[in-house]
Amino acid sequence: MEQTNMVNGINMNDFTGTIEAIKDQPVLAKFKFRANNEWINAGHTRTEIKDFYGTCEDIKHTNSFTLDADEPPVLLSGDKGPNPVEYALTGLAGCLMTSLVYHAAAKGIQLEEVEAILEGDLDIHGLLGLDESVRNGYEQVRVTFKVKGDMSEEMKEELVQIAQSRSPVFDIFTNKVPVSVQLEKESSVASSITG
Amino acid sequence: MEQTNMVNGINMNDFTGTIEAIKDQPVLAKFKFRANNEWINAGHTRTEIKDFYGTCEDIKHTNSFTLDADEPPVLLSGDKGPNPVEYALTGLAGCLMTSLVYHAAAKGIQLEEVEAILEGDLDIHGLLGLDESVRNGYEQVRVTFKVKGDMSEEMKEELVQIAQSRSPVFDIFTNKVPVSVQLEKESSVASSITG
Repeated sequence: MEQTNMVNGINMNDFTGTIEAIKDQPVLAKFKFRANNEWINAGHTRTEIKDFYGTCEDIKHTNSFTLDADEPPVLLSGDKGPNPVEYALTGLAGCLMTSLVYHAAAKGIQLEEVEAILEGDLDIHGLLGLDESVRNGYEQVRVTFKVKGDMSEEMKEELVQIAQSRSPVFDIFTNKVPVSVQLEKESSVASSITG
Repeated sequence: MEQTNMVNGINMNDFTGTIEAIKDQPVLAKFKFRANNEWINAGHTRTEIKDFYGTCEDIKHTNSFTLDADEPPVLLSGDKGPNPVEYALTGLAGCLMTSLVYHAAAKGIQLEEVEAILEGDLDIHGLLGLDESVRNGYEQVRVTFKVKGDMSEEMKEELVQIAQSRSPVFDIFTNKVPVSVQLEKESSVASSITG
């Protein structure tokens, strides 16, 4: 019988297998993540996450995820979900955490409890277009980790450093991502019907 | 009786009132958004969004929001939620959409339907530390809007442009945000007990 080596809930045989497979066939590492959003009313919008592309095929999530975003009354809507900048912070939080947990597992370090507290400063002069010297997004984000486990303070510091150096969403926040935004033209079929 | 002027579900009297209040008292525009994350198991983490700071006070959301993130089996976890880069895409989607809807309202343009389709390319060589020439985050994100409403194609194009130019999460993706990450030291109380 093969022995299952679990660290932090991750099957380390599968982890090693994944890395070896990517070394053999680098194209397996190319992923595409997807989100479809529709406007509901005022600041209320709904995003569906259903599938993604990875390991050379389209893969469906076990369940499709529906995420409602909204703005609180002070920002003129009905507070039916976190707002988009809170979703962005949620992505950063989860990503730093996952990065810390997986890279700890790769070092064979079992964690007991980990928490992260995040806060970002945002001046709405920017998004309202009231002051061109104020940026639209976060001016600064602060993250504080609490790590419990049988390891030295130096190792905890090292894990927090690795989390930053390998986290995709930390990279998205702290470096520039090219984003192209386009309007879908009215289809030629629609044009020919109305034309 | 005061007449209520609603556009896209937004009360335009309140919208104008908010802008006037900020012009009078700029400090009202300073917001702080917050997220607390805890690790559950493997790639499964949970974020709580409870409150934020704005208009010079702490404000509780009507309900506290709990957001589970996880990784799919191909990324070694149980698929109990969207993954962190999908949350980041959700923030971008909602933010571009809300920005488009609010700025359309400011122009008095009533929208009928709006959808946005997003896809981001991510090569996991980066996050696994297998190739230093590959970035950790998205290499490219594509957004396609479908806009329905009684307006010209030129106006639709203009709205898509304004959405980008005013969206906080678009700014977070396309420009650099300073993010500080620190480890909370074991408290002096704990040290004195163990010391």
